[in-house]
Amino acid sequence: MKLVELKGITFVEGGVCAAKGFRANGVQCGLAHKPLGDMAEANAAANNAIPTAKKKNDLALIVADKECSAAAVYTTNKVKGAPILVTKEHLRNGKARAVIVNSVNANTCNPDGVEKATKMCQLAAKALGIDENDVIVASTGVIGQVLPIEPIERAMDGLAEGLTYDGNKRALEAIMTTDTQEKEIAVQFELDGKTCTMGGMLKGSGMIHPNMATTLTFLTTDADITPEMMQRALDDIIKVTLNRVSVDGDTSTNDMVCIMASGEAGNAAITDENGEFEKFRHALYGILMNLARKMARDGEGATKLVECAVRGADSDEIAEKVAKSVIGSSLIKAMIFGEDANAGRIYCAVGYADANFDISKVDVEMASSGGVIPLGRKGNVIEFSEELAKKILQDEEIQILVSMGEGKGRAIAWGCDLTYDYVKINGDYRS
Amino acid sequence: MKLVELKGITFVEGGVCAAKGFRANGVQCGLAHKPLGDMAEANAAANNAIPTAKKKNDLALIVADKECSAAAVYTTNKVKGAPILVTKEHLRNGKARAVIVNSVNANTCNPDGVEKATKMCQLAAKALGIDENDVIVASTGVIGQVLPIEPIERAMDGLAEGLTYDGNKRALEAIMTTDTQEKEIAVQFELDGKTCTMGGMLKGSGMIHPNMATTLTFLTTDADITPEMMQRALDDIIKVTLNRVSVDGDTSTNDMVCIMASGEAGNAAITDENGEFEKFRHALYGILMNLARKMARDGEGATKLVECAVRGADSDEIAEKVAKSVIGSSLIKAMIFGEDANAGRIYCAVGYADANFDISKVDVEMASSGGVIPLGRKGNVIEFSEELAKKILQDEEIQILVSMGEGKGRAIAWGCDLTYDYVKINGDYRS
Repeated sequence: MKLVELKGITFVEGGVCAAKGFRANGVQCGLAHKPLGDMAEANAAANNAIPTAKKKNDLALIVADKECSAAAVYTTNKVKGAPILVTKEHLRNGKARAVIVNSVNANTCNPDGVEKATKMCQLAAKALGIDENDVIVASTGVIGQVLPIEPIERAMDGLAEGLTYDGNKRALEAIMTTDTQEKEIAVQFELDGKTCTMGGMLKGSGMIHPNMATTLTFLTTDADITPEMMQRALDDIIKVTLNRVSVDGDTSTNDMVCIMASGEAGNAAITDENGEFEKFRHALYGILMNLARKMARDGEGATKLVECAVRGADSDEIAEKVAKSVIGSSLIKAMIFGEDANAGRIYCAVGYADANFDISKVDVEMASSGGVIPLGRKGNVIEFSEELAKKILQDEEIQILVSMGEGKGRAIAWGCDLTYDYVKINGDYRS
Repeated sequence: MKLVELKGITFVEGGVCAAKGFRANGVQCGLAHKPLGDMAEANAAANNAIPTAKKKNDLALIVADKECSAAAVYTTNKVKGAPILVTKEHLRNGKARAVIVNSVNANTCNPDGVEKATKMCQLAAKALGIDENDVIVASTGVIGQVLPIEPIERAMDGLAEGLTYDGNKRALEAIMTTDTQEKEIAVQFELDGKTCTMGGMLKGSGMIHPNMATTLTFLTTDADITPEMMQRALDDIIKVTLNRVSVDGDTSTNDMVCIMASGEAGNAAITDENGEFEKFRHALYGILMNLARKMARDGEGATKLVECAVRGADSDEIAEKVAKSVIGSSLIKAMIFGEDANAGRIYCAVGYADANFDISKVDVEMASSGGVIPLGRKGNVIEFSEELAKKILQDEEIQILVSMGEGKGRAIAWGCDLTYDYVKINGDYRS
């Protein structure tokens, strides 16, 4: 799918290695993928480092040449993965130098989770010769299975030795679970007359729902900015990007978005909300908005991206509720998959959004590269050409446009269709 | 599936005709089932009363021998079907004698919806020789297609002439849409030493989500009770029955539950919250709880009923939020379909419920006629027998038991699994 371009930023290659001073690597350490009921067997398999059926990297490292400003946001689920608890502690000083992350096992709902997450930081710190408090740790995969630490321990030295300034793809492979598409992006922009670079990678396909960080996302930049200002930018931009995506309404336990800024671009450090801060936020938006779209498009089993743009609402908050209601509707998701223009379902989902507005002012349109078609006016479904509607729905990126007719509030949210494959993938995820 | 028995009430046959003094009928009037884009053609087809592909009844009438106390609850969706607006007006005096209802077309989001719904009442009233204000009207089917009134007009006299005291099945067939199972039930109970009967029928399979009346449900009883007391009982019981069901998270535009009480049982009229009122509520609960279970089991594409029982919460409200979170999770629904005991997903859904509690006190079990198995203790997934878990999941009724360890609050909610057929049914509903 095409990237959405924004003024003042240029897309470049390199993902998390695009910015100056960041190396990355990913390896297959051989984390077993077995249900807990067979835990003894799983642990035995892990101890022998028997390769899993999925022949892919499962352990990644991202390392900065020097200490960075760091910021992060986390899931709002009351069940929090153990790595999140450890990372929060390590980021209290706003500084970090490395990220260690594994897939296959989420290290969540385990009695020894924090111990294992801490151990992962210690192992990475030792291999890199840095302080363990400068390590961010994350895990993604099956919840509720004890994480075997031995495969990680055995792989760590090799993982560190293999770090390169172009290792982003190896790291990216290691964080993917049910993802079918690589999701990374990097941009260049100017701050204080200096060219800055920012890049990131994201995993996320299922268990994705707004109101939290959504997914694992790792960002790097060579811009110079304080941890406080970076946190502020991250908090702002997450709200209108990753928190506007829903694949299945399930809010994960392990979500984390973190960013490290090395300052190697040489710009004057951003310390308050000046024009340079705005440019930094804009670049961050360019990255996270495009990653959000990629994540929705690669939702589990998805064949189409669904974008709902709401305008004319009394406030941005109302617009957001309506947009999320539309992209979250199972019935709309199924009809997009079936390429059936059932306008009544769109009104129905607008109508049950938890917000106050006058439904009799609401217009609905649908659009794609195949054209634009009005489906409803002032609360009523109108006559339309089924032929054109079908043509529009055959595209891979469908837009649903809702005009509320009340004010200037607007919002965009992203989702995907609901398909047989979503059911298939999630009917038997653990095996 | 088996009915859940309750003390003091006995199940009997007869559905909406079980109570004394109620006749019913259903016919196929031939409402066309065509997308709006081909409206001209659809109307032409309707005008010629060409039978639809679905050879089933599509128009039902329920009539009481004399004027009844009546009460109803309606959808909370801001998009309301035109029949709801008309019925609300007709029930302002708490009296009714008849229900006219069609399937195939929801008569919603149409500019002439209210006019058509009013016309339906007038036609029924004329055929029955009663006041049009005593007619309850309801419609279910595709949203946003103009309702052709001619087929209804032509069928009305025959529909009225065919009314019998055992016509409940014919009426039931007429309100079904994607339903695959008949959902009706009747009970007997004692009030004031007199045997009273209450019966009802329900349609509902998709676009079903708590926080509204959920679905079309028509109830009749020969008990004597004022409209005010019946409304109070209905409001109370809906909260813990139909509002605890979710099939797909979509709140319909046309939901309505209505009840008519003829008083022919001869009990002293219930006029306040005495012991007899409690017995009436109890009978109503027996009916609506069992109908709720039937509706969840017959959710679109469903192969299994999922019941989540939460206990030990700080309040019933918290228990309800947790129970609804579990049965609403797409990931849990898919894993039930796949018969995969992924305990982490249950904790995940408990964790994102919008309520305050300590996740480290929460225990999780799973049960069915195949047995009971603990899956988690104090926030952590524990080791369990995959063999037993599989055996439990092979049943058609699965219970997820959540113990919060904090207080005495409890709640039950009902849902179903997410299957390929849900996607199939909703990928192309209109054609």
